[in-house]
Parts: sequence; structure tokens; C-alpha cells
Amino acid sequence: MRSVSILSESIDVRLNTGPDICDITSELDRLISKSDIGNGSLCATMVGSTGSITTIEFEPGVVEDLKRAINRLAPPDLEYEHEKAWHDGNGHSHVQAALLGPSVVLPVRNRRLKLGTWQQVVAINHDNRPRSRTVEVTITGTAW
Amino acid sequence: MRSVSILSESIDVRLNTGPDICDITSELDRLISKSDIGNGSLCATMVGSTGSITTIEFEPGVVEDLKRAINRLAPPDLEYEHEKAWHDGNGHSHVQAALLGPSVVLPVRNRRLKLGTWQQVVAINHDNRPRSRTVEVTITGTAW
Amino acid sequence: MRSVSILSESIDVRLNTGPDICDITSELDRLISKSDIGNGSLCATMVGSTGSITTIEFEPGVVEDLKRAINRLAPPDLEYEHEKAWHDGNGHSHVQAALLGPSVVLPVRNRRLKLGTWQQVVAINHDNRPRSRTVEVTITGTAW
Repeated sequence: MRSVSILSESIDVRLNTGPDICDITSELDRLISKSDIGNGSLCATMVGSTGSITTIEFEPGVVEDLKRAINRLAPPDLEYEHEKAWHDGNGHSHVQAALLGPSVVLPVRNRRLKLGTWQQVVAINHDNRPRSRTVEVTITGTAW
Repeated sequence: MRSVSILSESIDVRLNTGPDICDITSELDRLISKSDIGNGSLCATMVGSTGSITTIEFEPGVVEDLKRAINRLAPPDLEYEHEKAWHDGNGHSHVQAALLGPSVVLPVRNRRLKLGTWQQVVAINHDNRPRSRTVEVTITGTAW
Repeated sequence: MRSVSILSESIDVRLNTGPDICDITSELDRLISKSDIGNGSLCATMVGSTGSITTIEFEPGVVEDLKRAINRLAPPDLEYEHEKAWHDGNGHSHVQAALLGPSVVLPVRNRRLKLGTWQQVVAINHDNRPRSRTVEVTITGTAW
């Protein structure tokens, strides 16, 4: 039995006013190739309560369609209780991020993420201003 | 301290036109019993950008209710930007899958998934045609 | 290379009629400090098909905003097929929980969860009555 190792890393991304969506797949694959891990799993988690992570086909049409759907889930122009105390205009951002969720867990196979041909991992900023975001990445697996 | 091992496996499922929902719990438990792992976690990830994974009480009523809710999140009869370039009629499928998310991580306890009595793990096809889907499964844990 | 270890634990939470939202962050950090793990990942999964887990800024305004958004996803006053067979009044609870998802995976860094300053981990009860809930927690990582 091969011994299991863990790599803890992070990725920094710069995102525009939300919803903004950024493809981080190649960065994640780069972290895998830096490690000695060939098979296992990769956990990616958005640090911050107005961001989220999911997978999509990263082409301009789907990206625009997902932004619209996110704004239907929690429209920026509704009234939010968060505003009454904080007045920072991002009540919708917090709700959107909580509904999408902060994390995904993905298979690592033969030293790469195993995804569909048209499937990419994306980091999403929901905040009402541009944000620098950190995605924490933990790769657990057996040596190549 | 017991040493940690990892099992990388996959499950193939055949799903009808989306939203279609399939119970994969017993297949996941079968993979656990194939391994020597007694306690740890199981990561299940849908390969492909028009599928998702979650847990529900898998009975016909809830399954139908969830299908309707999924079609409210991203109705098939809206206009999608994805269509303008690709004309494959599945803009809603991509959006639905991204909102639900591709992965779950579940506890393994005493050689089985630890779930609620009425809680099952389901693979969902959101695409506008029947699809054969692969769910990648990574089990990490200590020996039984 | 440091050897990897795993801790399997659980947290019990008491939640009111759904949607009710409870901060479990300090309980999760307490489990990490009980272990010898310094870096790796923490998987938290809700046991039961009418509960979910996500992260939010846990302040009363956002909590109320998220409750409203959850009830927009699957309103309690819609007709549900689940009711026709079971008559337990919680069709919306099952749908809400499936859409939010049962699990998150979070980074452990330097013996603590690595989250945003205003980001907390929350357990959510969607059921139409108060529930005692178990969150299963699996921490995988290398010694401190």
C-alpha cells in the first residue's frame, strides 16, 4: 500500500464586481503537478463570505447565463436586513454565496483533475465591488 | 495510530433527459466494502458540466418536487446566451448543474456511509437528452 | 514527509423549526484542537435529508436574509408531491435541503479552520419542526 500525503496550498484571484466568474482549473492542475500526488482528491474552498466555488462549462454564454441565474436567486434590488445594520449594499452577495456554497471536492487521477471535457472549476465573487480572493486548496493522495 | 489509505473508483450511471435523478447510495456502500477502509470520508464528484450530486429522501414525491424546483432555478424555456453560440438547447442544463454543484463529501463510519435513515445520495442529469454519466469516488480513511 | 492521520467525530445541534440556522464554527475548531492535526482538510456533513451545511457571515441580518431566500427556493405554501403520500407537511424542507447540499469541505491551517474574517460555518434545519441534528466531521491532515 502506498503512503498518503497532503499538500496545502492557495491560489489568489482578482475578481470584478459580482457576480464575476473566473476559471481556476489550470492553476489547480499546476498545484497537482507541483506535488508528488497521482491519485486522490482536491478540496478547493473560497475564503470569505461573499464568494463561492462551483464547476461550469467556461464559455461566455454560460458564464452570462449563470450570472443572471445568481441574480435571480438573490436580486441586488431586494430589501435586505443586512443593510439595515451595515449599509454596505451587499446583502444579496452574502445570500448568493451561501446558496452556492464555498467548496468543491474533485477527483485527482493520473496527476490531473478528472473533469468532463467541457467542465471547468470556477471561483465566483458575489460582492458589490472588485475583490482579491484566496482559494485554499488541499490535495490528498498517493504518490504517482 | 492506524495508517491512512485511499481508494479511487468510479460509478457509471445511465440517466434520462434532465432533470433526472438516480439513487447511487448502494453503489457507494459497495465501493466502501470493497476497500479495507472503516472510518474516514467519501468524495463523490459528477464528471461533466450538466450533471450534479446531492442527497435527498429518494421517494417518488420528493424526486418530482426536486425536479420542479430545479426547473424553477433555471427554466428550460428562458432565453440563454449559451444557445446563441451553440444551439444545443441546454443552456438551462449548464446553469442548473452549476447552482447545485458537482460534489458531496460524506462520512464513512464502521464500513458504511453514515447518512440519515431517509437520506440517499443521488446523481442528477440536467442535460436535454439521456446521458451516461461517470461519478468519480475517492474514499480516504483508516483500516477497519 | 509527515504521516497523515484522520479524526472522525460528530457534533450535536438543536435547531428550531426551519429554516433555522446555527453557527458551528467554534465547535469545529474545538475538534481540530482535540486532534494532533495542523494542516489538511475538514469535511462536515449534515446527517438527515432535511438539513444542510454552508458558510455565511453569521449576523442577524444575513441570517434573516438567507432564511427568506431559502423559502423563495422552495416556498412552504406550494403544493408538493411528497405531501400526497406522506402528509407530514415538509415537502419544501426536503427540496430546500437538496438544493443547498449536505456538506462542505474546509481548509485546516495551523490548527484552525482557515476562513474569512466574517465567515462562519452553519448548520441549517429545513424541517417543519424543531430537530436535534448530528453533523459528522472528518478531519484529515498532518501532525502539527
